[in-house]
Amino acid sequence: MLSEVLLVSAPGKVILHGEHAVVHGKVALAVALNLRTFLRLEPHSNGKVDLSLPNIGIKRAWDVAGLQSLDTSFLEQGDVTTPTPEQVEKLKDVAGLPDDCAVTERLAVLAFLYLYLSICRKQRALPSLDIIVWSELPPGAGLGSSAAYSVCLAAALLTVCEEIPNPLKDGDCVNRWTREDLELINKWAFQGERVIHGNPSGVDNAVSTWGGALRYHQGKISSLKSKQESITSCVPDDAALGRRNGEMKLGSPALQILLTNTKVPRNTRALVAGVRNRLLKFPEIVAPLLTSIDAISLECERVLGEMGEAPAPEQYLVLEELIDMNQHHLNALGVGHASLDQLCQVTRARGLHSKLTGAGGGGCGITLLKPGLEQPEVEATKQALTSCGFDCLETSIGAPGVSIHSATSLDSRVQQALDGL
Amino acid sequence: MLSEVLLVSAPGKVILHGEHAVVHGKVALAVALNLRTFLRLEPHSNGKVDLSLPNIGIKRAWDVAGLQSLDTSFLEQGDVTTPTPEQVEKLKDVAGLPDDCAVTERLAVLAFLYLYLSICRKQRALPSLDIIVWSELPPGAGLGSSAAYSVCLAAALLTVCEEIPNPLKDGDCVNRWTREDLELINKWAFQGERVIHGNPSGVDNAVSTWGGALRYHQGKISSLKSKQESITSCVPDDAALGRRNGEMKLGSPALQILLTNTKVPRNTRALVAGVRNRLLKFPEIVAPLLTSIDAISLECERVLGEMGEAPAPEQYLVLEELIDMNQHHLNALGVGHASLDQLCQVTRARGLHSKLTGAGGGGCGITLLKPGLEQPEVEATKQALTSCGFDCLETSIGAPGVSIHSATSLDSRVQQALDGL
Repeated sequence: MLSEVLLVSAPGKVILHGEHAVVHGKVALAVALNLRTFLRLEPHSNGKVDLSLPNIGIKRAWDVAGLQSLDTSFLEQGDVTTPTPEQVEKLKDVAGLPDDCAVTERLAVLAFLYLYLSICRKQRALPSLDIIVWSELPPGAGLGSSAAYSVCLAAALLTVCEEIPNPLKDGDCVNRWTREDLELINKWAFQGERVIHGNPSGVDNAVSTWGGALRYHQGKISSLKSKQESITSCVPDDAALGRRNGEMKLGSPALQILLTNTKVPRNTRALVAGVRNRLLKFPEIVAPLLTSIDAISLECERVLGEMGEAPAPEQYLVLEELIDMNQHHLNALGVGHASLDQLCQVTRARGLHSKLTGAGGGGCGITLLKPGLEQPEVEATKQALTSCGFDCLETSIGAPGVSIHSATSLDSRVQQALDGL
Repeated sequence: MLSEVLLVSAPGKVILHGEHAVVHGKVALAVALNLRTFLRLEPHSNGKVDLSLPNIGIKRAWDVAGLQSLDTSFLEQGDVTTPTPEQVEKLKDVAGLPDDCAVTERLAVLAFLYLYLSICRKQRALPSLDIIVWSELPPGAGLGSSAAYSVCLAAALLTVCEEIPNPLKDGDCVNRWTREDLELINKWAFQGERVIHGNPSGVDNAVSTWGGALRYHQGKISSLKSKQESITSCVPDDAALGRRNGEMKLGSPALQILLTNTKVPRNTRALVAGVRNRLLKFPEIVAPLLTSIDAISLECERVLGEMGEAPAPEQYLVLEELIDMNQHHLNALGVGHASLDQLCQVTRARGLHSKLTGAGGGGCGITLLKPGLEQPEVEATKQALTSCGFDCLETSIGAPGVSIHSATSLDSRVQQALDGL
């Protein structure tokens, strides 16, 4: 067991193209969003496991001795175990959560305990740990905050238990794990996601683990570069490992964006059902529309690949046209919203192109920021969107996946959050 | 030669679905717009042919004797002659138009002279006529104003020359010609359109002649009911002939609409070229989009047929969904405009559904008015659109085609216009 403090981060995700169409067997492009979740893990010797999630006001502690005395054989199902409903029920007893516990808190605690017990039970003794997780990602906004949480937990717990080595070498500000280690992190993170979501697609944890951009098609997740291979056999660009935030990953460039949260609540299930109903009602109209969306994803994939190899300004123009067309297509599928129209209108008036991302019907939208855009223009756009009542953040997509950081490399805002200040 | 005064009217047209897609071999639905062009023809004996077009401030007169002495054999090319560039050049000499004559005036005068000389030259002597044409249709807005003009001229001239009988019987307020007579009117009107537009599709004059709704597909024009036949062999519902404005025609119901002119000037040629370029640039994206638009037209045709047979409120909901989807599709083709977005937004806020009609990029849009909508709501919507700087008219589509009226049946506004007041 390692004894040093570990600082781990993992990105959120947005769907660049293919939301909704993916449900009907089309390609979706998911990209890592450089709004990150940060985890600080400190081994200590007070016989407690402390979990602190300041974003949602959670602070829990368990006695290691009590957890140690549990019969955790119910978790034994091979190397990486898939949580069953029975296991999750047993975990609820272990967690000792009050009956009136909020859903978010219950799921966050259960996912933690599941990963902690499953990963650490192979140790001679369960470790005493102090863990704090803080995120830049708003929860429940379809930005993969739960996956980033699971990825951070899996990476930190696997590292502290020496299931995978700590890739951070003396003098490194940030580093990443090897392909094999990332695969293991991803597998465990997926189990955490299963505790939280029941039957997740696995895209969110894959994007948060690998970073860059991934393609999801009929249940298969692959990198954009080696799209014929599933992610478990894809070989990330080793040279890219350890690159800093905002740099290229897996051949896909980092793109600056505005991420706007309209804060209009949406019902993903109802929106997905609405598209299905429209497809059933108007098959001859909607099926070719889904085909057109699929082609947008493929064209975007092609352009991103080209940008990774030989960037040129006109590629941004194509990305903008694709964004516009897909936004109209999503509207035609019936998943638009007046707030998203407003977002598109406000940015369009400034020569910028936006689309909804995720389920639609409100929620979040992304706006592409071309290189060379003056900062005052960006600020004016953010200001205009904020005056609409939206939350607006300037960030990037195509961000690096799960990373490990030196204490001094994190900016003071993150440091303070992880210090519980 | 008849000696009575003839009062003829013909409707404009709007494209309900399929604009732009029609250029790429897809179906378009064109419907008669109940904004009409009215023509008053009075035979007189002063040896003059007078043409008055108050909408564009034109008043011209020619001496019948002068026209009679012309060698008009250049017009002799069979029953219905197709104007050649040489003929049009010769007509310019006949017309005696000044060099600085506006294009609209020149084309209106040439089309008149072409139809007058071609149709009346079979008479023993060219008739002395006083003709005034006044229209509710704004010119150059893609609403088929030139076709309505040609149709009125052809119907009135063929009737006064007794090439076709006057269908107006004693006591009739309004009546229409038989199928065969309408076919002849349509053929001549098409020649007038050729003088004006060079190479028109023939849709505008067909809609203005037949009324109701027509389908245009790969150069073939057919009625919605008997869509396998071209219009020249289609048999309109004889019972429908003679029905009053706003009633059913050719199995297609009249639908109440708002017609909104954004007054944003558009360049049809550039818009058509833009779609073609987008299709060439993104064939995999745009081709299925055109397929989807085609399916919208077909579905609309099916619903209109159903409405003609067994009207039900839910059919309007489908028409609204089709309008919304097509508007998004037209935006995806790149032929939208901020003014059209505004139109859609304003009407949407009142639960109404709109789409652009015609070339897009500004121009006109239509808004479906469901039955049962309260007049104050309609007025409020018109008011809101007018405050956007748009012209907004409440009218209907699926209107009757070219008709002949009794003097007393025309409303006073039309009477006054035709009396030159």
